[in-house]
Amino acid sequence: MGMVGGGQGAFIGAVHRMAAALDGQIELVCGAFSSNPKRSKASGKELYLPKDRVYGTYEEMIKAEKELPLGERMDFVSIVTPNHVHFGPSKMALENGFHVVCDKPLCFNMKEAKILQKLVEKTGLIFALTHNYTGYPMVKQAREMIKKGKLGAIRKVVVEYPQGWLSTHLEATDQKQAAWRTDPKRSGAAGAMGDIGTHAENLAEYITGLQITELCADLSTFVDGRLLDDDGNVLLRFDNGAKGVLHASQISAGEENDLNIRIYGEKGGITWHQMEPNTLTLRWLDKPIEVLRTGGGTLYAVAQEHTRIPAGHPEGYLEAFANIYRNVAKCIQANLAGKKPKAIYTDYPTVEDGVRGMKFVEKVVQSSKKGARWVKL
Amino acid sequence: MGMVGGGQGAFIGAVHRMAAALDGQIELVCGAFSSNPKRSKASGKELYLPKDRVYGTYEEMIKAEKELPLGERMDFVSIVTPNHVHFGPSKMALENGFHVVCDKPLCFNMKEAKILQKLVEKTGLIFALTHNYTGYPMVKQAREMIKKGKLGAIRKVVVEYPQGWLSTHLEATDQKQAAWRTDPKRSGAAGAMGDIGTHAENLAEYITGLQITELCADLSTFVDGRLLDDDGNVLLRFDNGAKGVLHASQISAGEENDLNIRIYGEKGGITWHQMEPNTLTLRWLDKPIEVLRTGGGTLYAVAQEHTRIPAGHPEGYLEAFANIYRNVAKCIQANLAGKKPKAIYTDYPTVEDGVRGMKFVEKVVQSSKKGARWVKL
Amino acid sequence: MGMVGGGQGAFIGAVHRMAAALDGQIELVCGAFSSNPKRSKASGKELYLPKDRVYGTYEEMIKAEKELPLGERMDFVSIVTPNHVHFGPSKMALENGFHVVCDKPLCFNMKEAKILQKLVEKTGLIFALTHNYTGYPMVKQAREMIKKGKLGAIRKVVVEYPQGWLSTHLEATDQKQAAWRTDPKRSGAAGAMGDIGTHAENLAEYITGLQITELCADLSTFVDGRLLDDDGNVLLRFDNGAKGVLHASQISAGEENDLNIRIYGEKGGITWHQMEPNTLTLRWLDKPIEVLRTGGGTLYAVAQEHTRIPAGHPEGYLEAFANIYRNVAKCIQANLAGKKPKAIYTDYPTVEDGVRGMKFVEKVVQSSKKGARWVKL
Amino acid sequence: MGMVGGGQGAFIGAVHRMAAALDGQIELVCGAFSSNPKRSKASGKELYLPKDRVYGTYEEMIKAEKELPLGERMDFVSIVTPNHVHFGPSKMALENGFHVVCDKPLCFNMKEAKILQKLVEKTGLIFALTHNYTGYPMVKQAREMIKKGKLGAIRKVVVEYPQGWLSTHLEATDQKQAAWRTDPKRSGAAGAMGDIGTHAENLAEYITGLQITELCADLSTFVDGRLLDDDGNVLLRFDNGAKGVLHASQISAGEENDLNIRIYGEKGGITWHQMEPNTLTLRWLDKPIEVLRTGGGTLYAVAQEHTRIPAGHPEGYLEAFANIYRNVAKCIQANLAGKKPKAIYTDYPTVEDGVRGMKFVEKVVQSSKKGARWVKL
Repeated sequence: MGMVGGGQGAFIGAVHRMAAALDGQIELVCGAFSSNPKRSKASGKELYLPKDRVYGTYEEMIKAEKELPLGERMDFVSIVTPNHVHFGPSKMALENGFHVVCDKPLCFNMKEAKILQKLVEKTGLIFALTHNYTGYPMVKQAREMIKKGKLGAIRKVVVEYPQGWLSTHLEATDQKQAAWRTDPKRSGAAGAMGDIGTHAENLAEYITGLQITELCADLSTFVDGRLLDDDGNVLLRFDNGAKGVLHASQISAGEENDLNIRIYGEKGGITWHQMEPNTLTLRWLDKPIEVLRTGGGTLYAVAQEHTRIPAGHPEGYLEAFANIYRNVAKCIQANLAGKKPKAIYTDYPTVEDGVRGMKFVEKVVQSSKKGARWVKL
Repeated sequence: MGMVGGGQGAFIGAVHRMAAALDGQIELVCGAFSSNPKRSKASGKELYLPKDRVYGTYEEMIKAEKELPLGERMDFVSIVTPNHVHFGPSKMALENGFHVVCDKPLCFNMKEAKILQKLVEKTGLIFALTHNYTGYPMVKQAREMIKKGKLGAIRKVVVEYPQGWLSTHLEATDQKQAAWRTDPKRSGAAGAMGDIGTHAENLAEYITGLQITELCADLSTFVDGRLLDDDGNVLLRFDNGAKGVLHASQISAGEENDLNIRIYGEKGGITWHQMEPNTLTLRWLDKPIEVLRTGGGTLYAVAQEHTRIPAGHPEGYLEAFANIYRNVAKCIQANLAGKKPKAIYTDYPTVEDGVRGMKFVEKVVQSSKKGARWVKL
Repeated sequence: MGMVGGGQGAFIGAVHRMAAALDGQIELVCGAFSSNPKRSKASGKELYLPKDRVYGTYEEMIKAEKELPLGERMDFVSIVTPNHVHFGPSKMALENGFHVVCDKPLCFNMKEAKILQKLVEKTGLIFALTHNYTGYPMVKQAREMIKKGKLGAIRKVVVEYPQGWLSTHLEATDQKQAAWRTDPKRSGAAGAMGDIGTHAENLAEYITGLQITELCADLSTFVDGRLLDDDGNVLLRFDNGAKGVLHASQISAGEENDLNIRIYGEKGGITWHQMEPNTLTLRWLDKPIEVLRTGGGTLYAVAQEHTRIPAGHPEGYLEAFANIYRNVAKCIQANLAGKKPKAIYTDYPTVEDGVRGMKFVEKVVQSSKKGARWVKL
Repeated sequence: MGMVGGGQGAFIGAVHRMAAALDGQIELVCGAFSSNPKRSKASGKELYLPKDRVYGTYEEMIKAEKELPLGERMDFVSIVTPNHVHFGPSKMALENGFHVVCDKPLCFNMKEAKILQKLVEKTGLIFALTHNYTGYPMVKQAREMIKKGKLGAIRKVVVEYPQGWLSTHLEATDQKQAAWRTDPKRSGAAGAMGDIGTHAENLAEYITGLQITELCADLSTFVDGRLLDDDGNVLLRFDNGAKGVLHASQISAGEENDLNIRIYGEKGGITWHQMEPNTLTLRWLDKPIEVLRTGGGTLYAVAQEHTRIPAGHPEGYLEAFANIYRNVAKCIQANLAGKKPKAIYTDYPTVEDGVRGMKFVEKVVQSSKKGARWVKL
């Protein structure tokens, strides 16, 4: 694996590296860790990389690595830069025959998204987008239950992503994370909605297997001086007639990262909270509440295959993230061996999820600008 | 206290009687328990009432009781009939000088609501509406905290009332509760929104001290053959610029009665769940989460005065309900003694809350009919 | 009902009155509310009792009421005094033909306990002891499940009753509750163990249907100057070979009233917490965790009959307490009518439970004094 | 790192490898993965090791690695075999100058324990014991709070470790984990008490900074045919006069891995649950409950340094485990560089913890055999 971004001071780069390392299937062999070559070098050294595999730019890296013999050169690129630097390295990597793992959201706008989508189709390369929350075993269990009709037809979806860390004008300090995430030039058309609203949207579509067809979004910017939305409330309509609510916020004071979802069908309902991710609560019309737990013996294979340790030993965010990397590694291994990967390993977010996310961002912004009118996706 | 409605087979009548009895301040002395005189008689007997104080109709009761000497006759009327029979007895009781406790929603439509509002103003009589959830001590604590500015300016409100008991076409069976609540002739213009959406609306306005000024409502009827909405998602805007989400549902399969609210201000957030009502969770920008508990020594006087037993002895729905009756009793006692009641006892929902509720119902229905467009309250 | 004790400033007297009033089956008709006749009078006035039914002493009350005609005189006596004044009024009431409801623990020592036990046997009168926690519907559900063998043979019981309110030398202030509960002359041989340990013991035996046959108790007094134990840890052995742990404490700083129990059998386990009493959690060897909720449709009749309102409307401490009074009222009504009460109404704690409790107190003290050696019950 | 044990089919070996890999500080370079050389080879291949670094026995590995030049040879040995094979490789590694990370419990009996203890003292090598639960940030926070006197003098400790997976005679099937853990020849003198009771003991002593001085243990074997205890209840006395309860069980049907602890001091109490490890609940005499969360800004440095990602992104069992490996790696790096490690990195369980654990096992067995009499540690 070669990494683009994620140098000293970055948050998500370290997450990607831990996730990639966890299962012993992936080795970091090179990187262009920063747009600042000096910082890139320093970062590479800290990561115990040989000097000649630490590059000043991603262009340099892709070119140089391509020259190396197969087996020695990196097998794929991991892109962990701010949003506005997803497109460039993704495109170049694909064009040069490298598989890609890219942080979400896919890119900066729909135009870029469609280019990447076509490129993936054309090249047949693996492109994984780290909508990591779908990596949790209980999320996969929920999806499988709904697929098998356990809840009956879905009627209602409530998906929430409250955070509170931008309750003040943090970007006016030197907080790096706050700075780029609230900057329209680096983050894109939306703030909270792009950063975390897309996670909520992806989670809802992933678990239910439904698509949002219409939405009505009321975005707000509560903090004076902020340039993008820091809160948004959205009404949803799904392709099967289900209705829903999505809200995401970075000014829900005191909230950490409480992504959660409730889904109700004709026969029952399901609840999942990211902050206690090993529990899935099932409610039924005519029997007791059931609580499923990661590692439990009655879970579907897809949940069990994405679990490492027995029930009661909590797995968390990094393990869910690692599930994406593990699956990508398995698919690349199969690819290198000229085989088809096991179906279970193909379960990771793709460029299609990325395109859905970009469309979602485009549409919530459009709806809100019209005064929170309904728009179609 | 004389009761209208609440005969055998009714649900809410028994609740009112238990709530009224709990604190030893109120005695049931007469009633017109059913539109069916035979059932009224039978109910009165079960309640150990003398035969001559059990009436066939509320008109009969109000007339007869008025003839009795003060001190012997009922001091107030408690109205626990379905929605379409709130207006008649309320109006007649007020016109004949009786204080009223009336189940929510106030009445059938805005026209009726305004008549009652004027009548209360004119007569100066006590009119309490049993939006009982505001009777919980931790709800009062939350309200007081916000009033005192502990959370700073309020930015976001999420209020939910999911139930699942109408997930099937229950009104097609002989379930009495389902039958009238889904019948536009007895329930009013809205189903779930009238029955429980109004509780959510009332709770949000009570705790925040804000008023909803605009809303956009997407109501649905998921169960075939049902005549009123059984689910609704509503975007809210408040008079101070805060935004919000309100959703209420009777098809959230498996949910019991999970009214809950989250309120976020500049400095912190607050969470309360009706089903575990003795806990109030406070989140802050810069200090640990705090959990307040009913009966705790650090609570405001208003919370302590509405609590009966020490912390750790859970008080529930009936105790919250009884707080309304206790306060009404104290106000009537003061009234009879020609005194002003203590301020703390005047804290019960009034005809004004009822008018807000009827307006809310009118507006969500209007918004939804227009295709979920924004309407002003 | 006539009450002994429970005058102004008392805690448990008001609880008994609310519990008795809740279901509209019991009327307070007289009382001897305090050993101080003046305070007794004042209390009676506050309770709207006629002057001639407010007595200066319990002896006076029992004598005077006995003179009144049946139907007019009190049907039973409710005794809500400190522990050392349980025996006297209980004995006299029984000897004069009055049924009794008595607060726990039964009395002061085993000698008194045995006298009362014989008197109840001899007179055939109803004697209910308010081990109120067994009044919760989910406790009854748990008991019924075990009785029916759902958990298989019971292997392990963990029952806890932590409180923190006596973490400081509160009895040195004028706190009335602390004063008598830590005074060996009024409380008995044990402090925390008598006051709340007996609740834990009663709960464990009630739910499991087992009896403790041996115990090893390590009692402590942590607060300087205190005269009785304020904490105790006890190992238990049951008559079927099950093992257990019981601990009770009044110095578990910050704890409110967290009585809770976990019971494990061959097939599954059960958890119940008094502070969230409407939830019963079931764990199984080979299926998902199940959560039962008060009011749920799948509960046994005994749980449903002790529930007043639909699921999701929390019932609490007073409702559980009221279940004892309701059952006693129904039994007395049957008795007056010369009929057998319905079996479900005979489910309240009796003098036998009281005798078990007194034995438990005697034995934990004995064991602890020997240096925490095993003793047989 | 070279590994002893942890071949195909093992549970804890994979945990150690993931934990070691997570932070990118440790590389697995060799191993003797099984007493069966064929399985060892196969395991090594799966782990992408070169053939010549996969050994048939640990003796072979230690000898061969010692021959390799520094920098190339393994820096330390990780021992993940069943209990009876901890002593041999630990001793040989230490004698040959290799640092050791060893799974708990330390070894088979006190005799072995003391030999290892002396060897560590003599060699000055690093010896880390994977009592991994002390690796959780909130456990470290709790320890620091108590050290700083936030709770005042500690009075009571309740520590529990219930599991249910051995509720049936699982060792009679071919379940490898059950087989060796219930076999006195491989597990040692105790079953549940050695396997998980030692974790509870270690956690209690780690957090409180106190030592158990006396205990009274009632061990049981509930499953027919089982050779070791599968449940135990223990009364504790600590060196400062605090009292406690410890119970551990593998027949608490339906429980996963619910290690938890409550500690009460003069001023407050603390609660922590392993299964939701990112929450630490603080109760106080005179202020609201506080809830601390992993990653929170108000935590002590020691908690923050053992956390990887921001609050709300749950870290779990593997991250806690990895904290031990990360710290060991940092200490070895310092050692290699001839420097003192930062104090924060020396926070990992040592051979001293191992000796305490072995003594605990010896004493609970002794106490129980005497009929649950008090014994001194």
